[in-house]
Amino acid sequence: MVDYAPATRSALFSLKFEQSGKRHIQLRSGGELYAEGNTMWGWDNYHGTKHYFFLEFDSAPTSFSGKDGDAVRYASFDEALVAVKARYGVSYISADQARKNLQDEITHFDLEQVVAEGRAAWNETLGQIRVEGGTEDERTTFYTALYRCYERMINISEDGRYYSAWDGQVHEDEGTPFWTDDWVWDTYHALHPLQTILNPEAQSQKLASYIRMFRQSGWVPTFPTVFGDAHCMNGNHAAAMFADALAKGIEFDVEAAFEGMHHTVLTESMIPWYRGAKTSLDDFYHANGWFPALAEGEKESVKEVNSFENRQAVAVTLAASYDDWCIAQLAREAGREEDYRFHIERSFNYRHLFNTQTGFFHPKDAEGEFIQPFDYIFSGGTGARAYYDENNAWTYIWDVHHNIADLIALFGSKERFTAKLDELFKQGLTTSKWQYYAKLPDSSGGVGQYVMGNEPSFHIPYLYCYAGEPWKTQKRVRMLMESWFRNDLMGICGDEDGGGMSAFYVFSAMGFYPVTAGLPYYVIGSPLFDEVEITLDNGNTFRVVAENNSKENKYIQSATLNGKPYTKTYFSHEDILAGGELHLKMGNRPNKTWGVGEDDIPPSGGR
Amino acid sequence: MVDYAPATRSALFSLKFEQSGKRHIQLRSGGELYAEGNTMWGWDNYHGTKHYFFLEFDSAPTSFSGKDGDAVRYASFDEALVAVKARYGVSYISADQARKNLQDEITHFDLEQVVAEGRAAWNETLGQIRVEGGTEDERTTFYTALYRCYERMINISEDGRYYSAWDGQVHEDEGTPFWTDDWVWDTYHALHPLQTILNPEAQSQKLASYIRMFRQSGWVPTFPTVFGDAHCMNGNHAAAMFADALAKGIEFDVEAAFEGMHHTVLTESMIPWYRGAKTSLDDFYHANGWFPALAEGEKESVKEVNSFENRQAVAVTLAASYDDWCIAQLAREAGREEDYRFHIERSFNYRHLFNTQTGFFHPKDAEGEFIQPFDYIFSGGTGARAYYDENNAWTYIWDVHHNIADLIALFGSKERFTAKLDELFKQGLTTSKWQYYAKLPDSSGGVGQYVMGNEPSFHIPYLYCYAGEPWKTQKRVRMLMESWFRNDLMGICGDEDGGGMSAFYVFSAMGFYPVTAGLPYYVIGSPLFDEVEITLDNGNTFRVVAENNSKENKYIQSATLNGKPYTKTYFSHEDILAGGELHLKMGNRPNKTWGVGEDDIPPSGGR
Repeated sequence: MVDYAPATRSALFSLKFEQSGKRHIQLRSGGELYAEGNTMWGWDNYHGTKHYFFLEFDSAPTSFSGKDGDAVRYASFDEALVAVKARYGVSYISADQARKNLQDEITHFDLEQVVAEGRAAWNETLGQIRVEGGTEDERTTFYTALYRCYERMINISEDGRYYSAWDGQVHEDEGTPFWTDDWVWDTYHALHPLQTILNPEAQSQKLASYIRMFRQSGWVPTFPTVFGDAHCMNGNHAAAMFADALAKGIEFDVEAAFEGMHHTVLTESMIPWYRGAKTSLDDFYHANGWFPALAEGEKESVKEVNSFENRQAVAVTLAASYDDWCIAQLAREAGREEDYRFHIERSFNYRHLFNTQTGFFHPKDAEGEFIQPFDYIFSGGTGARAYYDENNAWTYIWDVHHNIADLIALFGSKERFTAKLDELFKQGLTTSKWQYYAKLPDSSGGVGQYVMGNEPSFHIPYLYCYAGEPWKTQKRVRMLMESWFRNDLMGICGDEDGGGMSAFYVFSAMGFYPVTAGLPYYVIGSPLFDEVEITLDNGNTFRVVAENNSKENKYIQSATLNGKPYTKTYFSHEDILAGGELHLKMGNRPNKTWGVGEDDIPPSGGR
Repeated sequence: MVDYAPATRSALFSLKFEQSGKRHIQLRSGGELYAEGNTMWGWDNYHGTKHYFFLEFDSAPTSFSGKDGDAVRYASFDEALVAVKARYGVSYISADQARKNLQDEITHFDLEQVVAEGRAAWNETLGQIRVEGGTEDERTTFYTALYRCYERMINISEDGRYYSAWDGQVHEDEGTPFWTDDWVWDTYHALHPLQTILNPEAQSQKLASYIRMFRQSGWVPTFPTVFGDAHCMNGNHAAAMFADALAKGIEFDVEAAFEGMHHTVLTESMIPWYRGAKTSLDDFYHANGWFPALAEGEKESVKEVNSFENRQAVAVTLAASYDDWCIAQLAREAGREEDYRFHIERSFNYRHLFNTQTGFFHPKDAEGEFIQPFDYIFSGGTGARAYYDENNAWTYIWDVHHNIADLIALFGSKERFTAKLDELFKQGLTTSKWQYYAKLPDSSGGVGQYVMGNEPSFHIPYLYCYAGEPWKTQKRVRMLMESWFRNDLMGICGDEDGGGMSAFYVFSAMGFYPVTAGLPYYVIGSPLFDEVEITLDNGNTFRVVAENNSKENKYIQSATLNGKPYTKTYFSHEDILAGGELHLKMGNRPNKTWGVGEDDIPPSGGR
């Protein structure tokens, strides 16, 4: 029988032998193992980065197999022994540092104590948000989601030093811990905004870590890991992290962040899943403002394009437009007016691809002609990757986080915009489910063509608030939470993506959501719970109270903020920081007059 | 606003006009429409069979569009009218008969009365099984399932006459109503056995209907519908219906049933989804005992084989083996010793394809060589149809309903048999979910390679009882019911197939299941409910009581049948008919000594 309990950079195994006979414990690595007395140490290889460990048994083995430096060895114990415990530390710096990490955290072999300390630490962390009401299942789903919001990023500073895969060196951290492991395409939407509320100091350290990675490697990474920039997906949404932190008063070196992002988006290629210098496709983008698409089935001519990931021409253009808006915010803060104008102009590049005839972002070829014929559900191959990414054109209609007002203007009216939103949730698959998923495997958690199971869809149900129909936001977010985030066999509806999906749920269950990372506002949805209270690190508390809330009573009838009548469908980061209470009165029918005035609409970005 | 209430062969619409303006009610058909006074009548075309109707409005239209015989016409009403009601009857015989059917059932325009009568009729029908305990959701799921067990077959006798699509004639029914619409590949497993318990007289009429279809068309159908034999899937499992009825004392003309089945399996082709005389493939089967398979990718040489459905060589062989066993039972009852020996020998044909090296039924080519190389998960194309049908080799291991004891013998021991069962529930997809479903789209409701969502898997979890591990049956059936039959967004896990899937749930929720249609036994599982009571048409009641039952307490600790200690893992149809009580004591840990003796194992078929 095996029991196990982790601490931060160390852990404890308790192994009980259930049958008589020989006792061996084998360690396998992709590197080297050493042994002496009751200890073993060495390293494993993870994508070219060494992971060190140092382990101690509570009783000395009678012998070790093999020799020092072998990749696989086992320790043998006396046959009379019925139990062995082993504690170990890990490190990215050295086996000796792994030993110190162990000694800092676990100096005994008491599994229950490690368990109790872990439980206490998690209770304190998760207790920062207190909820009342909802069902037992909803509370379980909520705290499980909140727990997963701590999966990434990770602090890999050890005793004031850290190993960086960006230059292969061990650095002094100079009092600012180094964080890595982030999938920013997924996490900029909700996870970073959530961590910004809960742990602003750690958020500041994470931003400093991105700046270090830029300085150590020459480019700001998109998917930093312990082994370097995995550089998945498209876009360079560290820009969104920086802009969001700027809007919310998180401290970081704005000048350095601008420099890093500006340099990266102008010199690194935008080709999906490709880390390298810019190519002819990037030159085309910088000159013309859209990533040029190939016709369906046309052979790829640019060798850097990944044959599975393809050009993702619309997704790349939309992502770059948003990143430019974010970088423009940094430029303005840094007092760089010319750079601001440069990036803010580019932030409107999405307009090049809007097809006003159809109401979709539509790929264009290098001549500027819309690709025809075109199927907004299935064109683009697996995951629609020739033109979009993972999801199809229906998901990417809404991918203008930085200027929702302009997106509505492209549609011509709020009515046409909400009609399209309604259609999104209604449009069927047009083929059998298995055929649909064989073409769009990431489009899980479907409601019509809406895809709850992937990050580009998170903000979409909140967009009704920008067009005077907040009751539809309330209706849809409750339906989506009920249907696709469950405490049963179905679990959650898509890839967790390092806390990305969970953070959507944590926000939505609390009753608000950060539609635009880069603006200090939260759009009001419909909370699952009767009361939510967040304890902030400045000592204040912010509460969302939903009076008369129930599964049926999901519609906001009226609201007050700190006791004053409130009709806006959003509130500010400042409102949270100041502490206070958003009080919602709920009912089972929509109040179609609440939150519909021009002043009630959430602010958009733009210029 | 439209309200609607159905009776048996008639229904009532209540239509309210919500806006002012013109009032038209349009009827569309694929045939001819006639109109006069306040009535309309005519027929529609359904796969070449005429469906007649006769309709009466409660107020006379001011005019009708078009002319008699048009396929589409509308009735116009006075603009002052705010509501119109319409009652109508349907018939397969004539519009005049449709009028009579209406007049027999609805002589008023009172929608509430039709609703009340329908509710009373369903309450009486569904009330034949009374359950106590379980959750509200489980009771809802149970009665919804029981309701759907009445979706098919349907009685289409009208006033002592019926239209038969098998000869295109209207026949006198001579006091025995004519039933049709059955998907027997799906329904022989559980639906017919359930209806045999609940409605033995109707079951007798259904069997008589199959014999009529045989006499009117020359072959016993596999998928009788109102327009004839749709002849889907493989096998000819009307044989199982007859054999099961024989074992359970349902009255029918055994000699005619034997004659029909014997003639059909020897002269009609076994090629899936093909209705026609036997081919070279059938001759090969009759001579050699297995349906010959092609190598993967080998071009089809037999023109009758459907290019999508393919040969299904293993599935056809297994289905035919079982059907022969069923026909042998009819032959024996009819005193035809030679025919019995002929069919019983063929019932062992499955042995030809068992690969003792791998523990799978493995396709063989015409030379008798196993097809190699072979992937038991993915070989055979979409739905594994070259060799199996809809599901892969893992599902078809267990498809020897008529001789489980011999199947265990093929494995060599009960331990190897249960090890394979365990593996079935554990073996992963080996690829991503969407890639798996793109190849095996019918394999829904998966647990490992076990497929809850398709009929060939229904009996599998009960097979542990045949090998001395009934607690695993108890564990798995509860897990499967909880996971895959739900009163929420997920619903049930596969095609309903005209009550097929629902009947599995009804049986399993009651705590027993008919593993072998053709034997008068039910294998004991683990009931969802504290008490189930079936009221039989002979006036007796049969109860299953599960003492101390709960979600956790799913394991049988001990049992009594009519007060006497009971260790068998099955009981007989006679036990049900006699009335009485199976009393189970439940607990949260398996009792691995209950039901494990040789005498406790359910009987197998065989010779």
